[in-house]
Amino acid sequence: MSQATLLTGVLAPVITPFQADLAPDVERYVRHCKWLLENGCSGLAIFGTNSEANSLSLDERKMLLDALLAAGVPASKLMPGTGCCSLTDSVALTRFAVERGVAGALMLPPFFYKGVSDDGLYRNFAEIAQRVGDARLKIYLYHIPPMTAVPFSLGLVERLLKDYPGTVVGMKDSGGDWKNMESMLNAFPGFQFFPGSEEFLLPAMRLGAVGTITATANIGPEAIDRLFRNWQGADADAMQESITDFRRAITKFPQIPALKHTTAIYTDHPQWAMTRPPLTPLNAEQGMALAAELKRRGFDMPGIRN
Amino acid sequence: MSQATLLTGVLAPVITPFQADLAPDVERYVRHCKWLLENGCSGLAIFGTNSEANSLSLDERKMLLDALLAAGVPASKLMPGTGCCSLTDSVALTRFAVERGVAGALMLPPFFYKGVSDDGLYRNFAEIAQRVGDARLKIYLYHIPPMTAVPFSLGLVERLLKDYPGTVVGMKDSGGDWKNMESMLNAFPGFQFFPGSEEFLLPAMRLGAVGTITATANIGPEAIDRLFRNWQGADADAMQESITDFRRAITKFPQIPALKHTTAIYTDHPQWAMTRPPLTPLNAEQGMALAAELKRRGFDMPGIRN
Repeated sequence: MSQATLLTGVLAPVITPFQADLAPDVERYVRHCKWLLENGCSGLAIFGTNSEANSLSLDERKMLLDALLAAGVPASKLMPGTGCCSLTDSVALTRFAVERGVAGALMLPPFFYKGVSDDGLYRNFAEIAQRVGDARLKIYLYHIPPMTAVPFSLGLVERLLKDYPGTVVGMKDSGGDWKNMESMLNAFPGFQFFPGSEEFLLPAMRLGAVGTITATANIGPEAIDRLFRNWQGADADAMQESITDFRRAITKFPQIPALKHTTAIYTDHPQWAMTRPPLTPLNAEQGMALAAELKRRGFDMPGIRN
Repeated sequence: MSQATLLTGVLAPVITPFQADLAPDVERYVRHCKWLLENGCSGLAIFGTNSEANSLSLDERKMLLDALLAAGVPASKLMPGTGCCSLTDSVALTRFAVERGVAGALMLPPFFYKGVSDDGLYRNFAEIAQRVGDARLKIYLYHIPPMTAVPFSLGLVERLLKDYPGTVVGMKDSGGDWKNMESMLNAFPGFQFFPGSEEFLLPAMRLGAVGTITATANIGPEAIDRLFRNWQGADADAMQESITDFRRAITKFPQIPALKHTTAIYTDHPQWAMTRPPLTPLNAEQGMALAAELKRRGFDMPGIRN
C-alpha cells in the first residue's frame, strides 16, 4: 500500500451546520472545513458521529462532499464516513467517495442488528471491498460501541487485514477503552490507528498511532496538532494534560450540541447551535454555563472567526 | 380518526428473499406476501426488523412496495416500516408510502444516537408528522430496545398522542417486557397496541390490544390468527400455550435466519435461507436441527407451498 497518501495527524469529525429548516447550511459548512484545515487539522473526517451524518440522507451527504470539492477542499484531505446499515447504501456511498479521490473511508459496521457474528460483519466489509472494487479504496474501521453496540473484535480486524491488505488499512477507536486501543496497537503494527479522543493521543502515539480523529478538533485543533507534532518532546506530557483538561471541560456538556454551541459563539452565528433530531441544542442554562467555562479558559471570543 | 380503516389482527413483519447477488427476489417476495394474506395474516408489516429493512436502501424499499401494489396486494393491508435514522429519509419514505394509501407507517425512532432525550425524539416525530402533512398518515411507534437501545417512554407517547391525535395511533412493542406492555395498554385506552410477539397475544388482548405483529407469522400465521379470533373462547389459554410453545422452539435458533430457513424448506427453495450481512444464514448443523424440530412437530413438509 502506498503509505505516502495516507492521512495522519489531527482529523476533525466535522460538525454540520443547519439552516432554520434543518437543511445543511452548505456555505457555512465549507467555511468551517476550510477554517479547520487552516488551523491545525491535517484532514477532515466528514460524515462522522459528530457530523450527525446518520441524521442526513445519502443524497445530502453526497451533496456536501461535492460542495467541498467544488470549493477547492482537496479530496486527499477527506476521510468521509461511508458505513451504513444497508450494504447497498454503503457500497453506493463508498464508491461515490472513492471515485472522487478521497483519502479514505471511515466505516461504521451495520449498526441496527445487535449480537451479530464476526462472520456477518466480515461478510459486510468483504462485499463492500469487492463491490467497490477500486484499488484506491482505503477503509478505516470505525469502532464506536457506545453508539453501535457492534464492536470490532481483534479476530475480525485480523481477518480483514489478512484478506484485504492495502484496502482495510486502519481504525478509529471511539470506544473510550484504553485497553482495547492498546490491544489493537500491539496486535497490528503498521495499522493506521487513530484514537477517537485526544485524551489518548500521547499514549497511543507511543504505541504507533498515526494521529487522532477527535470531536474537540472542531473548536480547537491547534493545541492537539501541537502535541501530535511534538509527541516526542520534553513537554509532551504537560501538553497532553492541558488538552485533556480542556476536553473534559467541554464534554461535561452534551458533546455534539456543546461543539455546535461553541462554534455558534466563535462565529457569532446562533444558528450554528442547531441540531437535527434526535439531538437537541443546549438549553439556555447549559449554553450560559458553557460560555462561562470557555471564558474562564480565555476562549470566550464571540466572532473570533467566521 | 376513522377506526374502521385501522389494521387489527395478525400482521407478519415480512421476511425478504434475496437472490444469489443479494438483490431482493421480487417475485418470491410478492408470492410470500400473498401467501401470508391468504393464510391468516390480516396485514403485512413490510420493512420491519425481520424484513432486514435496515439492510435495504430506501430505493429498494420503495421498489418492493410498488411491486406489491402492482401485483394486486392492497395498500390497505400494508403497514411498512418507514422510520430511519435520518429525518429526511423518514419523511421521504413515509410520504412515499402514505401517497400510495398504506394503512399505517411503523416507525422506528432514529436509532444511531443513544441516550437521546424525549424532547429530541418528540421533535423527530413532530417534524415527520408536519412535513408529511397528510391526514391519511397513521403512525405506529416501533418500540424495540433490544435493537435500538432507544425506548419510547410513557411520557413521550402521551405527548405525541396529545399533540398528534389521529396521526400517532399505535405501537408495536417488541421489547419483550410484559410490564412495559401492561403500562402502555393501561395508560392509553384506544391505543392501537400490538405486542411484537404472539407470546403476549392473549394477555395483551385482555387489556385492549388489537392484534400482534410477530415474526413467526411468517411461517405459521393460522394458529396465531385462530387465537386472535377466539381470544374470549374457553380454549384461549390452551391455544396461547400451544403457539407460545411453537415460537419458543423456533426462536431457540437465531430468529431471522430460522424463519428464512423454514421458508426455504416449505417452498423447497434453498435460496430463501440467504440473509444480507450483517446477518448470516443458519449453518448446516443449525439447519438440520431446525428441520428435525419442525418434523417432530409435524411441520416437516418440504415444498408444502410455493
